[in-house]
Amino acid sequence: MRQLNIGTDAYIITNSSLQALFNKNINKSLIKSGLTFYYKLVPDSEKSKSFSVAVRILTDLSAYGRNKRLFILALGGGVIGDLAGFVASIYRRGIPYVQIPTSLLAQVDSSIGGKTAVDLSRGKNLVGSFYQPKLVLSDVGLLRTLPLRQLKSALAEVIKYAVIADRELFIFLENNLSGILAGDKTCLEYIVARCAGIKAGIVSRDEKDKKGIRVILNFGHTLGHAIEAAGNFKVYNHGEAVGLGMLAACGISRRMSLLNENSCQRIEDLIKRAGIPMRIKGLDTKKIIAAQYHDKKFYGAVNKFVLLKGIGRSVVMNNVPLEIIKEVLRERV
Amino acid sequence: MRQLNIGTDAYIITNSSLQALFNKNINKSLIKSGLTFYYKLVPDSEKSKSFSVAVRILTDLSAYGRNKRLFILALGGGVIGDLAGFVASIYRRGIPYVQIPTSLLAQVDSSIGGKTAVDLSRGKNLVGSFYQPKLVLSDVGLLRTLPLRQLKSALAEVIKYAVIADRELFIFLENNLSGILAGDKTCLEYIVARCAGIKAGIVSRDEKDKKGIRVILNFGHTLGHAIEAAGNFKVYNHGEAVGLGMLAACGISRRMSLLNENSCQRIEDLIKRAGIPMRIKGLDTKKIIAAQYHDKKFYGAVNKFVLLKGIGRSVVMNNVPLEIIKEVLRERV
Repeated sequence: MRQLNIGTDAYIITNSSLQALFNKNINKSLIKSGLTFYYKLVPDSEKSKSFSVAVRILTDLSAYGRNKRLFILALGGGVIGDLAGFVASIYRRGIPYVQIPTSLLAQVDSSIGGKTAVDLSRGKNLVGSFYQPKLVLSDVGLLRTLPLRQLKSALAEVIKYAVIADRELFIFLENNLSGILAGDKTCLEYIVARCAGIKAGIVSRDEKDKKGIRVILNFGHTLGHAIEAAGNFKVYNHGEAVGLGMLAACGISRRMSLLNENSCQRIEDLIKRAGIPMRIKGLDTKKIIAAQYHDKKFYGAVNKFVLLKGIGRSVVMNNVPLEIIKEVLRERV
Repeated sequence: MRQLNIGTDAYIITNSSLQALFNKNINKSLIKSGLTFYYKLVPDSEKSKSFSVAVRILTDLSAYGRNKRLFILALGGGVIGDLAGFVASIYRRGIPYVQIPTSLLAQVDSSIGGKTAVDLSRGKNLVGSFYQPKLVLSDVGLLRTLPLRQLKSALAEVIKYAVIADRELFIFLENNLSGILAGDKTCLEYIVARCAGIKAGIVSRDEKDKKGIRVILNFGHTLGHAIEAAGNFKVYNHGEAVGLGMLAACGISRRMSLLNENSCQRIEDLIKRAGIPMRIKGLDTKKIIAAQYHDKKFYGAVNKFVLLKGIGRSVVMNNVPLEIIKEVLRERV
């Protein structure tokens, strides 16, 4: 951060648990580098990703920031990263920010690519910006504190990168899944670096999500978001819903004769071995389909799916027949 | 708008007076082009440029916008343009917007360049973004409803463009001032097009205000903002304060032997003939200097002034001696 010359005063947005875990090391390192710091704590829940919390932080920033060379440091998972990035993007028309993601999901996904957002009561991520962090500092040592359910659900995103763009990573996952689940540092470092590289590569070719390239990152997310929404974001977490969405997208790909039976089976097996749910429980498929039709990604089309032509090869299809969507969902209930 | 393919549904942000004046023509034109529209009215005051109004609009947009191909149409002066541009920049990470500026100040300045902003209680423009409109539609026919005080104060910005970058425009202003003040359409069209061209040229070389090019647009604004702030934004309007700031900047330029006596006199004469105040009345110079030191444009330096080397030739200087600033302010009291 010192080398990047992004400012002298770190405004750290985090929650109290993370502060308690990491503040000693962070403070020591910042002091050593001649940087000042200040902690702004937000509640440890999805509710922090709201417009009202953003306003509170902006008001606080405007009081604290006078005569300082501020930059924002987001210490947390996706919620804190998205919120902090949004605040950084609009305070004084943008000040530098740094991501220190503390969850595997944030390390492989949300901290990379500069999509920032907060929620409105009408829906998730309705307000936000495209704004790149100056630095993403991913340390897998921070992950030891994560519950296993979260670690496993992040694996859904890791598997996503492999199946859409990186056959080699897919084979690595097949061969090293137990090491990853046991928290082996070398394995985790490999997948974090590999996923960050894949995402950065895709995003750099389509930063504002306008060229139909970045959209492949939504593999599994079309129905995944609908499954999350149909369960009011309580039944399945993001990674689990994406896992179920990927299974459905594989099913659609196979039914549309894009993906062969063997590849489809290998993907299903990997998802199963990762301990990600294979069945949609307690949700009505009608509700999922209704939620899907409100997804902002269809804005202007009937629907849009990222499908597979093979492991590591993706394709975007518009207007998949509703009957096929219903079939693959019924198969998962 | 139809040709630009920016959407099918216009979300028009304006106030009730402007709606009453222009809605007939606008509705007819939009209907003819096959576009739908919806009016969102905001109060006719600087208070509309607040975070809370932005939140109300975003909430309304998220309810109204479902299944629509929305774009935002800002119909108004700088307050509405800045607010609407900010909302457009963050709703769904950015939707297209169009500026239809209804004041001379907005036509020559704020509608061009993509700086959007709202105020926080701690200060003006503390939250915002860089986000370009897809179209700026300036019709000088809309200006007939403007009070003379506003027209004259907008001339301060027009004079600014001339003195920093366009000697030819300066001579045009010297020769056609009475026509402009009388609202001559040909004169107004000439200066609006010329100023928009100058600003667009400068902004396109330094969109994010990071290269030290765009900063020359702040000529007269350094002390101008301080004069506005010292009067709690009640004593002088923006254009008047900028006029006073330009006089001070000319004074500094002359004292620093950058600008000759003759050019300085011509600038002063033009400002005087435009009916812009020449003296700072009822404000304490100490208060102005204190306000100046809180200007965000100094972020990281003691102070920064855009000064003149001649009519149409500007230069940026850091750390102008406080004694000189005090002298030129005292001269104007």
